[in-house]
Order: sequence, then C-alpha cells, then structure tokens
Amino acid sequence: MPKTDVISELLDRGVSEIISREELEKKLLSGKKLRVKHGIDPTAADLHLGYSVIYRKLRKFQELGHTVVFLIGSFTARFGDPTDKNAARRMRTKEEVEETAKNYIKQVAKILDVKKLEIRYNGEWFDKFSAEDLLRLMSEFTVARMLERDMFQERQKKGQDIGLHEPVYPALQAYDSVMLKSDVTVIGNDQKFNELQARPLQKSAGQTPQDIMIMPLLIGMDGKRKMGQSLGNYIGLSEPPEEQYGKIMSLPDKLLFQYFELCTDVSSTEIQKMREAMKEGSNPKNFKMRLGREIVTLYHDGVAARNAEAEFVKIFQKGEKPTDIEEKKLPTKSYDICELLVAMQLAPSKSEARRLVTQGGVKIEGEKIEDPFYVVPLAKKPLVIQVGKRKFLKIRSQ
Amino acid sequence: MPKTDVISELLDRGVSEIISREELEKKLLSGKKLRVKHGIDPTAADLHLGYSVIYRKLRKFQELGHTVVFLIGSFTARFGDPTDKNAARRMRTKEEVEETAKNYIKQVAKILDVKKLEIRYNGEWFDKFSAEDLLRLMSEFTVARMLERDMFQERQKKGQDIGLHEPVYPALQAYDSVMLKSDVTVIGNDQKFNELQARPLQKSAGQTPQDIMIMPLLIGMDGKRKMGQSLGNYIGLSEPPEEQYGKIMSLPDKLLFQYFELCTDVSSTEIQKMREAMKEGSNPKNFKMRLGREIVTLYHDGVAARNAEAEFVKIFQKGEKPTDIEEKKLPTKSYDICELLVAMQLAPSKSEARRLVTQGGVKIEGEKIEDPFYVVPLAKKPLVIQVGKRKFLKIRSQ
Repeated sequence: MPKTDVISELLDRGVSEIISREELEKKLLSGKKLRVKHGIDPTAADLHLGYSVIYRKLRKFQELGHTVVFLIGSFTARFGDPTDKNAARRMRTKEEVEETAKNYIKQVAKILDVKKLEIRYNGEWFDKFSAEDLLRLMSEFTVARMLERDMFQERQKKGQDIGLHEPVYPALQAYDSVMLKSDVTVIGNDQKFNELQARPLQKSAGQTPQDIMIMPLLIGMDGKRKMGQSLGNYIGLSEPPEEQYGKIMSLPDKLLFQYFELCTDVSSTEIQKMREAMKEGSNPKNFKMRLGREIVTLYHDGVAARNAEAEFVKIFQKGEKPTDIEEKKLPTKSYDICELLVAMQLAPSKSEARRLVTQGGVKIEGEKIEDPFYVVPLAKKPLVIQVGKRKFLKIRSQ
Repeated sequence: MPKTDVISELLDRGVSEIISREELEKKLLSGKKLRVKHGIDPTAADLHLGYSVIYRKLRKFQELGHTVVFLIGSFTARFGDPTDKNAARRMRTKEEVEETAKNYIKQVAKILDVKKLEIRYNGEWFDKFSAEDLLRLMSEFTVARMLERDMFQERQKKGQDIGLHEPVYPALQAYDSVMLKSDVTVIGNDQKFNELQARPLQKSAGQTPQDIMIMPLLIGMDGKRKMGQSLGNYIGLSEPPEEQYGKIMSLPDKLLFQYFELCTDVSSTEIQKMREAMKEGSNPKNFKMRLGREIVTLYHDGVAARNAEAEFVKIFQKGEKPTDIEEKKLPTKSYDICELLVAMQLAPSKSEARRLVTQGGVKIEGEKIEDPFYVVPLAKKPLVIQVGKRKFLKIRSQ
C-alpha cells in the first residue's frame, strides 16, 4: 500500500472520532517519530477482545515506526479512575497495583511488540509529587469543568457521593501527557473527557497538544452491552482455541462485520465483499467460521485455528464427542444427578442443575436425562456427561 | 467571681454560637488544660478592633490556664482560603507568607500573652505531605459537602470559576485540628463551615471533636459593613491614641454597647446600667468618651487615654488647635491649594482635594477656604492647614 493509504487506513478503519484528524494526519505525514500514549489503570486481570480494539490500533502505530508509550497508572490506580463506576472507589495499595500491572503486560504482548514499547509508570513523577505540587496542578482546572463529566453528572443526579479526590483524576491524567510529551493518544470513548484535559495543560507547558484517537467500545457476545469481564460476555485473549472459536460461533450475526473490522487484519475490501455476499443470502455461519479462524490464528496460530474448527464441526455439526475430554475420578457409587452436576462445577447451584436437567440440557453417554431425580450409576465403565453444547466431562471410578 | 460565673462569662459574653455549649462547658469544668486552636491565614497587615473580638476571647482562655494554640497557615495561605473572596485567589510564595506572619504576631502581642502562646505553622505537616497523603485526606470528604459552602454556592450561581484546589481548603483546615489535638476553636462566623469539617475527621482519628466558639463579626465605623482593612472603616490596634479616640467618638450610637461588650473589659452589669441610662436620656457622647478611654487604655495606657481625651475636648468641644501638630518644611513660594493638599497627602487626588475645598472642609489658619483655585502664600509665618475635623498639618518655609 502507498504510505498515504496506510495512513488513511490507520486514521479511518474502525475509528469513532479523532480530535483532530487534520492535526494528526499532518503529524503522521511530517515524518516525525510520534509518541503514542496509552494509559492504563491496571485493574483488569484478564484481557479480552474489547481491549484488543485499542491495542491493535497501537500495533499499527508501532508498525509505522512510532513509539507506543505504555503508561501504567501505578500512582493513579491506587485511587481509582471514577470512570464507569457509579460509586466512589476504594483505594488500593501500591503492591496490589504493581502485581496487576505485571500480569497485564504479559497479556498485552499477544498484540503489541513489547520489546519496542516504552513502558512507564506514573509513580515516576507522582510518587515525588508534594501536596503543594498537586494543589498547584489542581489550580489549573475548575470544579465546574471537572463536574461536567457525564459520569459525575449522573452520580450527582442520583444523589450519589463523589469523593473530593475523584475529580482530581482527570487532572492527573492530563499531567501524564505533559510528562510523556504525548503526540497522540489512543483510547476508548470513556476516556475522552480525561484526555481532553491534557490539551490546554500541554499548551501552557509549551508543547503541541496531543491528538486523541477514539475507538468504539466493542459490543460483547450478548449483542447488547460493551464487552466486559464482569459482564461475562467476553472472549479472553488467553482462552483456549476451542473456547474462542466456539464463542465466536455463538456471536449474534449483526456483530460479525464490526468484529472483522476491529479485531482482525482482514482487509476492508474483503470485509465489504463478505458484507455484500451476506446481503445476497450467504449463510452467516460461513463468515463466522472465517472470523473464528482469524481470531484463533491471532492469539494462538493457524494450526490451532484449523483444529478448533475441526473440533467444532465434529461436535456441533456431526454431533460427535470432542477428542479431548477432561476426566475426573470419583468413588464407585451412585450419584444424584443434580448433586453431581454441582459437585463437578457443571452447574452453579442445585436449582440451576434441576432447571438444566428438566429442560433437556444434560446428556449422559449421549442420552438426554430429563428426570431431576435420576441416579447416575458410576461403575467400571467411565461416563461422559454433556451439559449444553460445549461442556463435556468424563467421570471414571477410582 | 466564682469559677462557674467566670466560665459562664467566657461562654456567653458576646458569643454568637457554640457547637456545642454543653460539651464545651463540660470540658471547662473537667479541670483539663484545654488546647484552644485559632488558625490564621496571615494576609492582613494591620490588626484592628474587629480581630480583637476573637483575640480578647482567646485571652480569657489564657487567663483560665488553657493553652492557646496559634496556628499560622504557612502552607494553606500559599493557596488562599476562598472565604469571602468572590474570585479564585492567586497563589503566594512561602516567603511572602512568612513575612506577613511575623508582623502579625507582633501585633497580636497587644492582646495575647505571646510568651504563653503555642505558635505553630501548618507547613510543619503539610510541607511534608505527599500528593498521595493529600488525596487520601480528600477521600474522607465529598464534593457535594464542600460545595455546600454558601460562598461556593454564590460563586456557582454567578457563574464564577471555582478552582479545583479551592474546595480542598476546608479539608486541610480540618486536618490542622487533628494534628493540633484541638479541644476548642474560637473563630468568626465565616470560618464555621471549615471548622465543622474537623469534627468527623477528629472522631475517625480517635479524638474528641473540637468545640467551636463563634464570635460575631464587629461592624465597622460606617455602621454598615463588618470592620475590614480594605473597607476603610476600621480602628487599628497600632493607631495613635488620638486617632483611636477620635474614631470612637465618631462611631454611630447604635454600635456603642456592642463595642463595650466585645472590645472592653467593662463588666456586663455596668454595660447594662449604661444602656438603661441612655434609654432614660443620657447623652451618648459621655458613653462614647468612656469607650474611647477604655480602648486607648487597652492598646496604649491610662495616661495616653486621658491625654487623647483632653486633646479631643480642646479641638472639638472648644474649637482649639491640637497641641502637637505635625510640621513640614517647604520652599518659600506660593502653592495651588489643591496641589498642596495632594502633595501633603491630605487628599488622595486632585479631584478629591477640589471636592473637599468647595464643600468647606479645608481651613487655613482657622479660616475656611472655599475657592479651589486659592493660592497659598507660604512666607516666614508658618501656616496650619486643617482638613475635616481631625487632620492638621503645619507648613513652614525652609
């Protein structure tokens, strides 16, 4: 691709908004090696495709030779970004934060070239910050400006408390950009307010204000809410190939092309072609299988992708049992079906187990068991229990 | 006086409000040596009777054997208490603040026993405070609570900016009380909100919350606004006896007994008697002369008080010139009356000088000069210029 096309792709593919596109394009064309800030508050334990939307864009900056500055809010995380939280957050210790950060970087390596990352911690400057420094920084902002944040507005409306320390967070985040001499930052829409605060502060520090590239929040597998760890609607980057592939196959059709655009390297032209083919009646399942292969290839490899697909076809399309099934050894005796499901963690509670059984979601050795009082006779022969479409367990007598 | 009467006088004379009177009375009767916090933001250069209302009350605590802890906001003053200011305050340097503090203590010595004062600076703890310490302190408070302050409410209503650092001030002031283990604080009403913040903070630190004794704000000589340096309606503690006495004599009658109560040692019984005598037709002037003597005696001595009174009687009641008149030597020549008034600092501007002359406020050698173009012929004979009732200057040719 010619350089200008690469830049257009970087600026436009999947991007929600750039403040400002014109400024950023000029910076990219100038030939200067840009400093691309991405700040994280290392609270999440498990990265998923939602995060990858931003990291894949950062990767593109790396590929163009720019420096991705990965800022770990080792200081700020101790107080918590109030973003998206509807109650004042508890404060965390330095140790808790650092532990989480390590795990985070390990996962980020699945997307970014970690060797080329400039990894920084904002404790570098804020741990040395005095109360006076902080007050002087705060005096550059007004209460009204900070409380404009939609999230604070909502909390105020609901009569929920806002800790006096909370509106300081955007000011700290703004100062990070000054310290890092950020040229551009890539963020989700929920960080727009905070990152906007950096621009006037950088200006008064004699810097060119950073541009802000805003990526959309990826919708989760439920097709409703943004992908999130606590919502249980996510596809983790570290999940096994079969799990990732299976989850992609259960994705609502309407999300298909957004996922292609935001989470894969499939070219825009090709995505457009698939879109048209689907309009003309092609079965969405074929595109989902392609998406599944792409995702598994990215986070595992091509072989894993092919195997995951073969396994999926075997179980779901041919109705066979999976190749590898987890085994557990149990004392030789008879088991109450519902108690067994709970003990084996195939159901979260006894009432849920009962619901699964009576609705026909449980098979033993391929046969549907619909009686919740069924007794499972475990003898010499191992038994394969299947719950729903994808959960299998083999129990074997000790 | 019996001890309980002394305590009642302390708790009730001139006091606006105590939070809570019952608690404080208990503390006073317990026999414990109390720590009486009084915090200042050393910005004022010139103490006046308005300040004395609080310092006289603190003096009573000293006389009862308690420790007055005089807290100089060496840290907080650098950012400015937003109290009573309708615009965000500029920040001051450490040096500016310390210089003002020295001068302040010198003047306080006119009322308090400075040797027994525990003088502290809040830089002692806040200069060592980290940004993290400050954020943790702030997290004990909510934005809503801080913005409840009437002054912030007003500024918000007027659409005036509130610096993000400003609502932190009450939290800092509250923390001062914790560090000083304050049992009670004596303040003007404008500090009520800030000092109230200390109570829950002291409680969580395992201390008994301080009680808050609120003194009224003294009305200035204009009979309208609170006495204040910038309002020009004040009687300074360091002013010469004649000046203090003269100002008291020009006081509106309605303020007379408030001044007796808040600014003198005249007993409550005696004040009550004067109040009744005045109702029955006694001339207020006699009580004002008594008030003048009391004030001058407090800030100078009895002899100075008698002399000031004699001088006052001579000039105002007998129409004579004062005994000692300041003299200035000038070149022998003729002077434009208005230019002369300005040059001699008897009028602040030429237009003001013109107004004074045309309204008959200027006399030379006892003769009213009403022509603003009058030429003053300074020859061998010195001339006494009188402006208004109390300003006299003798000019003499060199």
